[in-house]
Amino acid sequence: MTDQPLWFTEEFDAGGSAFSVKIRERLHNEQTEYQHIEIYATEKFGNLMVIDGCYMLTARENFIYHEMMSHPALFMHPSPENVVIIGGGDCGTLREVLKHGRVTHALQVEIDERVTRLAEEFFPELCVSNHDPRAGFLFGDGIAWMKEAAPGSEDIVIVDSTDPVGPAVGLFTEAFYRDCHNVLGEHGILVQQSESPIYNMDIINSMHKEMRAAGFADVQTLFFPQPCYPSGWWSATMAGKYSLEGRFRAADAADKSFATRYYNAAIHTAALTPPEFFKQALE
Amino acid sequence: MTDQPLWFTEEFDAGGSAFSVKIRERLHNEQTEYQHIEIYATEKFGNLMVIDGCYMLTARENFIYHEMMSHPALFMHPSPENVVIIGGGDCGTLREVLKHGRVTHALQVEIDERVTRLAEEFFPELCVSNHDPRAGFLFGDGIAWMKEAAPGSEDIVIVDSTDPVGPAVGLFTEAFYRDCHNVLGEHGILVQQSESPIYNMDIINSMHKEMRAAGFADVQTLFFPQPCYPSGWWSATMAGKYSLEGRFRAADAADKSFATRYYNAAIHTAALTPPEFFKQALE
Repeated sequence: MTDQPLWFTEEFDAGGSAFSVKIRERLHNEQTEYQHIEIYATEKFGNLMVIDGCYMLTARENFIYHEMMSHPALFMHPSPENVVIIGGGDCGTLREVLKHGRVTHALQVEIDERVTRLAEEFFPELCVSNHDPRAGFLFGDGIAWMKEAAPGSEDIVIVDSTDPVGPAVGLFTEAFYRDCHNVLGEHGILVQQSESPIYNMDIINSMHKEMRAAGFADVQTLFFPQPCYPSGWWSATMAGKYSLEGRFRAADAADKSFATRYYNAAIHTAALTPPEFFKQALE
Repeated sequence: MTDQPLWFTEEFDAGGSAFSVKIRERLHNEQTEYQHIEIYATEKFGNLMVIDGCYMLTARENFIYHEMMSHPALFMHPSPENVVIIGGGDCGTLREVLKHGRVTHALQVEIDERVTRLAEEFFPELCVSNHDPRAGFLFGDGIAWMKEAAPGSEDIVIVDSTDPVGPAVGLFTEAFYRDCHNVLGEHGILVQQSESPIYNMDIINSMHKEMRAAGFADVQTLFFPQPCYPSGWWSATMAGKYSLEGRFRAADAADKSFATRYYNAAIHTAALTPPEFFKQALE
């Protein structure tokens, strides 16, 4: 080690910016069948997983993303029993979903098994519920799975994927959303990570449009901070088969039986509040 | 110019992280009596002002910070007529304050006149209200000004300063907050930028404690994104001489006669919602 600190840096083309974290060492480096995965030990963010040069998660602040990908949708469904997670190989979203006592089965459909194996090794805190009898794991193509799953069989679909480039492109299309719509039951809700509100309004607009075109009656975007992602500000977009208005089980969220670090009943409503420019930019 | 892009980078010690923006050229470089000021033309953030190596503002996204430093406090005061801004030399906060028709006088007390002169040159859009007859400018020490101002003479004090190091340290003390309390009228509100909720909980806790010790009855923190600041997530902390509960003029905010890009009546309430970890970390 020299006196010079080592950094991991991701450049965000859409933003003309870059975010770096100080690292101690690279713990793992692997080219899988699907992608390039690296694990770093950082100075202040705990372990860091990088896929194809992009931040996936850090031990320090993934709690925001994982809580916001799961609890808002689950607290807007009257009885979320069957949940499928497309992607989400680090198991952090699965852990949050399984905190809900109403969930009877949560299936994680991750294309790259190595993501899950590396999470078990380097992010064991995210994998504490992997042996829950309600948890299911399938390592395969989420797009193909969604085409073949039984109609009306799921209450919640969570798309916890990488950015809409490479293997994840097919997860941001009307065709995929149609399959999600078909697989969801009557009160079904789809929620998908939807990039940075300040850098990627084009993607968010396109998602709203294609989710509606696929038959969803109501589409709403959630906003939350996520320091290691481009701009430090992130979003998830929810699509409901029926209107999402008045669907929030606020009393259940306020009385929830499990701990969270970012989400709470008031944050639920706050996160669904669009800033002025977003309302104007939404086509 | 080579093919290699040029970057401006600020390292955030408390976070073990760094944020960079792609730059075209440095437009200005000056050591003033108080600090080192640089202006850059960036690829995607418009002009950038850097003070002592730290991001002050970019043309692209300063609107979030400036709106959140002004509108929440002004819409919580029954009749904000006299406003003083300590710091804020770029005039962006002043511009937002003067959008409120009830304001009769807004005084900007900036220690370094060069900040304002450079804002006029490189951020003219922030200075469009500098010739408003209600605007006042005083280039001098905000701490000394607050000690000498007439008791009860201001409705709102906005502390729009650099980080609590160097010349701004004195703005984060009980002694300064006591002077603010004295200068504020009956319904007076102090609002101050209060760093990153995820990197600087120590500073936010200390501000809450010292504002209360200085006599303020209620202290509340506002949360908002700010991509160029450490972690991309920022805060401002408000202190009221009386309880801030029920003070929001929501109907006035919903009917506001001026345009904003981030703030709106719903964002007001959303921004005041503390995430779970914040509630627990607040001592």
